[in-house]
Amino acid sequence: MKISNGVNIETIRHSLTHILAYAVQELYPGTKFGIGPAVEELRFSSRFANARAIENGFYYDFDLPRALTPEDLPEIEKKMREIIKKNLEFRIKNVEINEVKKIFKDQPYKLELIDELKEKKVKCYETGKFIDLCKGPHVKSTKEINPDGFCLTKIAGAYWRGSERNPMLTRIYGIAFKTKKELLNFLKAKAEAEKRDHRLLGQKLELFSFDEEVGAGLPLWHSKGTILRKIIEDYLYKELTSQGYQWIISPHIGKLDLWKTSGHWELYRENMYSPIKIDEEEYMLKPMNCPFHVKIYKTKIRSYKELPIKYAELGTVYRYEKSGVLHGLIRVRGFTQDDAHIWCTPEQLSTELTKLLKHGFKILKTFGFKDYDIYLSTRPEKYAGTLKGWEKATNVLKYVLEKLKLKYQIDPGGGVFYGPKIDIKIKDSLGRPWQCTTIQVDFNLPEKFNMNYIAKSGRKQRPIMIHRALIGSVERFVGVLLENYAGALPLWLSPIQVWIIPVGTRHKKYAKEVTKKLSDSEARWELKNENETVSKKIREGELQKIPYLLVVGDKELKAKSVRVRSKNKDLGPMSLTKFIKKIKLEIGNKK
Amino acid sequence: MKISNGVNIETIRHSLTHILAYAVQELYPGTKFGIGPAVEELRFSSRFANARAIENGFYYDFDLPRALTPEDLPEIEKKMREIIKKNLEFRIKNVEINEVKKIFKDQPYKLELIDELKEKKVKCYETGKFIDLCKGPHVKSTKEINPDGFCLTKIAGAYWRGSERNPMLTRIYGIAFKTKKELLNFLKAKAEAEKRDHRLLGQKLELFSFDEEVGAGLPLWHSKGTILRKIIEDYLYKELTSQGYQWIISPHIGKLDLWKTSGHWELYRENMYSPIKIDEEEYMLKPMNCPFHVKIYKTKIRSYKELPIKYAELGTVYRYEKSGVLHGLIRVRGFTQDDAHIWCTPEQLSTELTKLLKHGFKILKTFGFKDYDIYLSTRPEKYAGTLKGWEKATNVLKYVLEKLKLKYQIDPGGGVFYGPKIDIKIKDSLGRPWQCTTIQVDFNLPEKFNMNYIAKSGRKQRPIMIHRALIGSVERFVGVLLENYAGALPLWLSPIQVWIIPVGTRHKKYAKEVTKKLSDSEARWELKNENETVSKKIREGELQKIPYLLVVGDKELKAKSVRVRSKNKDLGPMSLTKFIKKIKLEIGNKK
Repeated sequence: MKISNGVNIETIRHSLTHILAYAVQELYPGTKFGIGPAVEELRFSSRFANARAIENGFYYDFDLPRALTPEDLPEIEKKMREIIKKNLEFRIKNVEINEVKKIFKDQPYKLELIDELKEKKVKCYETGKFIDLCKGPHVKSTKEINPDGFCLTKIAGAYWRGSERNPMLTRIYGIAFKTKKELLNFLKAKAEAEKRDHRLLGQKLELFSFDEEVGAGLPLWHSKGTILRKIIEDYLYKELTSQGYQWIISPHIGKLDLWKTSGHWELYRENMYSPIKIDEEEYMLKPMNCPFHVKIYKTKIRSYKELPIKYAELGTVYRYEKSGVLHGLIRVRGFTQDDAHIWCTPEQLSTELTKLLKHGFKILKTFGFKDYDIYLSTRPEKYAGTLKGWEKATNVLKYVLEKLKLKYQIDPGGGVFYGPKIDIKIKDSLGRPWQCTTIQVDFNLPEKFNMNYIAKSGRKQRPIMIHRALIGSVERFVGVLLENYAGALPLWLSPIQVWIIPVGTRHKKYAKEVTKKLSDSEARWELKNENETVSKKIREGELQKIPYLLVVGDKELKAKSVRVRSKNKDLGPMSLTKFIKKIKLEIGNKK
Repeated sequence: MKISNGVNIETIRHSLTHILAYAVQELYPGTKFGIGPAVEELRFSSRFANARAIENGFYYDFDLPRALTPEDLPEIEKKMREIIKKNLEFRIKNVEINEVKKIFKDQPYKLELIDELKEKKVKCYETGKFIDLCKGPHVKSTKEINPDGFCLTKIAGAYWRGSERNPMLTRIYGIAFKTKKELLNFLKAKAEAEKRDHRLLGQKLELFSFDEEVGAGLPLWHSKGTILRKIIEDYLYKELTSQGYQWIISPHIGKLDLWKTSGHWELYRENMYSPIKIDEEEYMLKPMNCPFHVKIYKTKIRSYKELPIKYAELGTVYRYEKSGVLHGLIRVRGFTQDDAHIWCTPEQLSTELTKLLKHGFKILKTFGFKDYDIYLSTRPEKYAGTLKGWEKATNVLKYVLEKLKLKYQIDPGGGVFYGPKIDIKIKDSLGRPWQCTTIQVDFNLPEKFNMNYIAKSGRKQRPIMIHRALIGSVERFVGVLLENYAGALPLWLSPIQVWIIPVGTRHKKYAKEVTKKLSDSEARWELKNENETVSKKIREGELQKIPYLLVVGDKELKAKSVRVRSKNKDLGPMSLTKFIKKIKLEIGNKK
């Protein structure tokens, strides 16, 4: 079947919500329908959001005469295909309000919506025997929809109009593309992505968890997750120290006054939590570390000889996110930035930015990321400082990107309130982009906090401030690593690198000897002494993504060797000395 | 002069406030006097606290006809000694209220106080020509006061009755003892303690600072302080990991419900800050880490085979302290505990406690502390759990202390709301005690959170929980270390261990070579390339308490050696190789 390529896929998805509702009407007479407002409203308002075209798909909410199970979906799909093949028109009707009420007299949810309308005429779309309140747009005819380009994916409960006080409706989800090939590719990628879902991996590998009573978006880091964080943080500590950064530590709360001075209270308040009262004064949980770093800079008179001054902190900040957008470690309410601030002279700015970009790429590469999307984000609607300052800052960022011959896109209005920025999204092994590095130029905070240094001339001068995070957030980065490697982290990042599996009781002593040697080489190991079969332990080790499984039995004991298994493959026997050499080398090379 | 030993030193100090006021009356006619209420009131109420016997001393507030300077103090002291030597009586007088008003008709501050009295007769004390409102008690005669046992120490401003809306008075401070020897010893110890004041050292050595706009009791850790913290934290990480602890990380806030379940909301609320609202729910800044650790324990079904489970966290907690008691790093509003929780079977409890105490002593000894005061703190007024549980827990703590033959004192009612504890106060080089280690047995939280493990029998059983911090708080411990070592930290703890000081420009290249070798040995160094004299750099290095100053000039360049200065002494030349060996050895030995 030939499909017009000109039709917008969003329009197709929206039209499919009507076809889905039509099919349900045919199959389950007596169904009460949720809604069918215009796609514009669907996209930009949550007011009527009980039926909508969503990313890659669509859904519709129903009050059904009987409960559905996933087994019912194929029948609905079949009915939808039948409807599509009838080449039915999507007819626009402008109906008098009284007439509309008659049409929907048996549809209480629709009537509720109609009652809220102020218009005298209501736009409806009719397709075959199905009519819905809707502003469109839609395909002209169902023949524009590929009957093999969609499928229904799941059933879920959803409160009418999102409120717990309303009845629970049944939401049916589907996805749709223009071609069957696109659909299959998407399903394949989705299955792959699901295997890599860091939330499931985090649970399976015992890295972290969330707890309802602790609060949404506040991760609890278990032992192995903490080891992983520590590996990343220790690496950053060494890497940044070698680049002349000084490490500092600041508190998690600070007086409201501080955030008033910094401008956060005026321009960033919606991301901040409500104040805490201490002795008649208000304190804020920090959404950023910057004002504290500024305060340390200001404890001394600074000379141009000291610049650039670079302060780094693994600072845990707390920012408001709506509960609906929270997503594992990727979007949380408290996260640890690999945050740093650099103060330099105007002459040093482009050099420092160049160094920063290069250093950022080096670090990302060490973790295995080599592909990026680069964005230059410009002045947002709410901003501090002067237009001239913004222009200057934006130009220097552009200059540096171009000097380094980096391809980049402009993200208009995507800057932070205090300055423009370069954002780097790393692409993972599935090509998915993840926001990590951010480098921001700021002429404003130094002004607000009256920061100075004594220039060569002996006069006071204002330093320029750079805010930057290279991996971004330790939490999110761990999430990205897990998704990228599907949990099978490179050796140097693996919380546990080796399992030693004695075949029988008589091999336990030698197994212990092996652990001793491994400890000397600083490898992280676990001895699997439980009374279970070797094959069960191997299976578990592979599920746990342990890089090396060393089985030791009679032969190994005799030969002072180990039988090595790695990445689901038996690598055969290896002398213990050789294995230790191999693993030390690999850890050193960050493999 | 013979002094009756029977007289209470507090009484002597209080009587000295009158003698001080008498002397001021003689020397500065027209002075308006602050107050002279009874010592009881002085001690237990801040209502009249403008004249009082304070720790080791006393003060009195005056509205003087002219401003005083410290140079005036000897004259006042002289006058006080003259008065004392007159052997004047302290006569009690009960005076009719109208009469009192006449006596103090020229003393507006006194009149203000008299107007507030409800009594018909007012108690006064008369000494020579000086009379004051006062409930006493006092010495019988000035001959009970040693004229060489006291001195005046300083002058400060103080608002009348502590309120900013009142006039600023002049407060004169003194200290007093029964004998001259005691006074001299105190002055000596005080001078020593002042040299060791960690707040001044923190500033001088650029370790940390506080900032009014950030908030009281919230330290900002500068680069060198952060290095020091990291050394301590890395040491603890290794030490605890070797003892089978698993490291975890928990958020800084948690839902109010969590603290209701744990009992903190009921029994620990006065130490907690006000709630933060997120999406209609209340969150608390954590005052303790325990509930989070419990949550991680509970993510799995636990077996007796896993016990004891030990979770450790360098967890930063926030507890309310009155602004008046905040003191540098010793008493702050946010601090990082070397916190851990151990869950074990009842059979394992005494073994685990014994191990803990021994391990605590080992750690404290590594930092140079070998003397302790040990306290067993029992059930407080507000407590959770049953009396039987408390008795059991207290008895096992006693048993362990006695088994280890440790001397201890009972601190009645000093336990935490959930259980009794052993507290260890380390004694520093001046013999001053500092609270560090705490080991607490808790039968309650496991109950409240319904914690279980599967016992050997296959049945569910409740684990026992131990809360413990060995160094206590990283912040306070850094304060204690600084006071103990007067800033001259042992080599392994010194943020910067070596300064390399080239004599002239032509030695800079060799100095750089020296730094290269030092880097290989992982020593922390700074190259002092500034254009200043060698002697100035040495003086500064000694003030900065740098353990080793290496001067390199012609001779050293030629001989590939360094001239070593340490602890204000010239140790002469040493081959570079030998110095590197020496410093590596010392760092390894934690010297």
